[in-house]
Amino acid sequence: MTIDDTPGKGTTPSSAHEIERYGGLFARRTRGMTSSAMRDMMAVTARPEVISLATGLPDTTTFPAEDFAMLMSRVAVDSSAAALQYGPTDGLEDVRKCIVQVMAAEGTIVETDDVMVTTGGQQVIDLVCRAFLDPGDVVVAEAPTYPGAVPCFNSYEADVVQIEMDEHGMRIDLLEETLERLRLEGRRPKFIYTIPNFQNPGGVTMPLDRRKELVRIANERELVILEDNPYGLLRYEGEALPTLYSLDGGRYVIYAGTFSKILSAGLRIGWAAAPAPILERLNLGKQAADLCSSPLNQYFVVEYFKQRDWRRYLDELRGIYRRRRDVMVAALEEFLPHETTWTVPQGGLFVWAKLPDYIDTTDLLARALREHVAFVPGRAAYLDGRGGSEMRLNFSGVGDDDIREGIRRIGKIVSEQVALYGTLTGAKPAPRKAAEPAVEGQVVPLRRREAS
Amino acid sequence: MTIDDTPGKGTTPSSAHEIERYGGLFARRTRGMTSSAMRDMMAVTARPEVISLATGLPDTTTFPAEDFAMLMSRVAVDSSAAALQYGPTDGLEDVRKCIVQVMAAEGTIVETDDVMVTTGGQQVIDLVCRAFLDPGDVVVAEAPTYPGAVPCFNSYEADVVQIEMDEHGMRIDLLEETLERLRLEGRRPKFIYTIPNFQNPGGVTMPLDRRKELVRIANERELVILEDNPYGLLRYEGEALPTLYSLDGGRYVIYAGTFSKILSAGLRIGWAAAPAPILERLNLGKQAADLCSSPLNQYFVVEYFKQRDWRRYLDELRGIYRRRRDVMVAALEEFLPHETTWTVPQGGLFVWAKLPDYIDTTDLLARALREHVAFVPGRAAYLDGRGGSEMRLNFSGVGDDDIREGIRRIGKIVSEQVALYGTLTGAKPAPRKAAEPAVEGQVVPLRRREAS
Repeated sequence: MTIDDTPGKGTTPSSAHEIERYGGLFARRTRGMTSSAMRDMMAVTARPEVISLATGLPDTTTFPAEDFAMLMSRVAVDSSAAALQYGPTDGLEDVRKCIVQVMAAEGTIVETDDVMVTTGGQQVIDLVCRAFLDPGDVVVAEAPTYPGAVPCFNSYEADVVQIEMDEHGMRIDLLEETLERLRLEGRRPKFIYTIPNFQNPGGVTMPLDRRKELVRIANERELVILEDNPYGLLRYEGEALPTLYSLDGGRYVIYAGTFSKILSAGLRIGWAAAPAPILERLNLGKQAADLCSSPLNQYFVVEYFKQRDWRRYLDELRGIYRRRRDVMVAALEEFLPHETTWTVPQGGLFVWAKLPDYIDTTDLLARALREHVAFVPGRAAYLDGRGGSEMRLNFSGVGDDDIREGIRRIGKIVSEQVALYGTLTGAKPAPRKAAEPAVEGQVVPLRRREAS
Repeated sequence: MTIDDTPGKGTTPSSAHEIERYGGLFARRTRGMTSSAMRDMMAVTARPEVISLATGLPDTTTFPAEDFAMLMSRVAVDSSAAALQYGPTDGLEDVRKCIVQVMAAEGTIVETDDVMVTTGGQQVIDLVCRAFLDPGDVVVAEAPTYPGAVPCFNSYEADVVQIEMDEHGMRIDLLEETLERLRLEGRRPKFIYTIPNFQNPGGVTMPLDRRKELVRIANERELVILEDNPYGLLRYEGEALPTLYSLDGGRYVIYAGTFSKILSAGLRIGWAAAPAPILERLNLGKQAADLCSSPLNQYFVVEYFKQRDWRRYLDELRGIYRRRRDVMVAALEEFLPHETTWTVPQGGLFVWAKLPDYIDTTDLLARALREHVAFVPGRAAYLDGRGGSEMRLNFSGVGDDDIREGIRRIGKIVSEQVALYGTLTGAKPAPRKAAEPAVEGQVVPLRRREAS
């Protein structure tokens, strides 16, 4: 990461002398722990002049402030003392009822006892690592994978094996090959981490047949799957697909959900659904981690589900994000040189773009920040240094005009790089075709354009 | 723990077959992870007929519901979108300014950059373990220690060495002996965990000379101290003492604070103050753990400090808790047999009682629950099975009458046990002296009564 020109609090480099003082004391795991690209980005995005396509922020300006005030007043009137108090580690029964509703909306039937409340979806990943990983244990993940999971896997000294994706998500043939190789090496993976819907950062979705295959493999090989589904309800076209959890019937799949993308990320309320013996281990881990998730925020969720139609707000969000996705895809068509490809996601928050191999997106980011635009460089989504020419672009957190302007600026610096490469090597840039904006409702999972 | 008659959610025992399914997959650390006694208690205390002296609950009924509603309305008006959004991992600058104020009230001068916001004080313990502990590493703690730290230490496979306390807290002579023994064994402790003020559960406070000694030892031996100070501002008599952090000058001490006991536990907002290189590692750990603590709740803290005099509410709490402590001590004098001793804390939330050796408080709890009264059995505060005849009694979470009635019930079953022991062994119970209620303002750190 070369974004050191914008140090955030706590990332200020300490003097060598200071670090040395504690050198012998820090745990081995801290050697592999580097700051998540997304977190570093928070400092950048705080500057108003920067158009940030980097972080995965939902648009919280759409939530009416008067609703917020009204709901909190109700919490105060009905549950002040309980909201301000410690709560059960598993979460309030009433929140778990809301979670049952949300999961049912994607066709996944659970009971409140199958579910525990967590401090955001991120904590599910952390607690699953805590329950399953000894140092050196294998985790299988997609390539690329959620950049926020990378520091978590590193924190538990996991040996992460990443499986290539195509336009249908994780390639099951490569997964089976890899599992077989690991078996022969005597290394049993503890779990497979996957985001089947509108993958972060890849933007692709796993179809039904591949989901069934994945669940079959987990059952056959007695492997746990961690299904991370923060965006499932943010689908802009096409039919909802069954969750791995529902296909598995609650044997080998741990499901991670969150209110961050359908209500508010600031609440830090997520959940895990899992088989009982696993849920017990996650609960023990949570006792150690933070005792319980904020009861105040849990009461807010409960009141929201009581007083408002949560599906209506979701419809509104879907409308906004669908349009923004279309704006981004159109801008990519207009401004990015022809050597570039990107995914057109059916939902979620992210587009994943691939630039020519000779462009390093980590270097490019430094240039982009000078133009006051930010993205997540691809390396953040790999644990093995790959992804150097890739980038993640978020379309949920900024308005239409800023998306277009942000992509225009990125297009400008990428085009300069392409031109520079051409000058140095004598290669000619690909001829431009007329822009083909994505048609709403049309499913174009992966758009590839070949350089001529 | 024999409180299985009240299983909480997630502690429901799974079938052997189910557990076996994942047997080979769970991490080694899960073998040492057992449910914290306090957490199990949450299910019990939820039953209205039970007088719980078990959990360390602040009295949140004292916080005016109308203030809660008013403050949240202000957050909604001024900061709705930001409160509902992700925030920086280190916490909002404005909350860190409030933390600077709170620490200054105990004479500890820090800057906002010395501080990071956490998801309750519990998360500080977790993040410090994450930054420092490899499996098998030594942690030095007090005997007894905070029961909530026990599952955390186990979760990181720490080798916890507990140092006996007297009425002045951790015995420094024994600490030095132990550190020397560990040095000879080639085992370097990573940190010393201590609660110098109104220790949980011991109820004792470390005087100035011992604090200075402890800091000197940490500097000489290059050891980190984790100073946990959730109750420092809840002092009911005597003069405030300097924190270890202030005595050390920010070299080897990590300070853990929280708004849980001075404002609300339901917010789950605490903090760490630490030297910069340590703060960086804690920040990296927090990125993996939960990305950030609820911005909504952080804005609530900021608004509270802006709109209200936080010291006034604290004064009110101190008045209530001081009286409850006195009620509890008077009830112990009245109802407990003479073979019992207990601490009279100058502040905080807990009294620590020692019963005759032949009484096992874990067994006693089962009887107590039948009488609808609960406490934390002493073993929860040790990692080595000690504490079998000790118990922690909380006086902050229940009203005066319930404290008295709760202690009466405990006194009754303890007296029965003493009488039964006398019958079986021929020993006579100690003659009763007239009750000597604690005088307000009088410092009686440890009251010992000898059986005649």
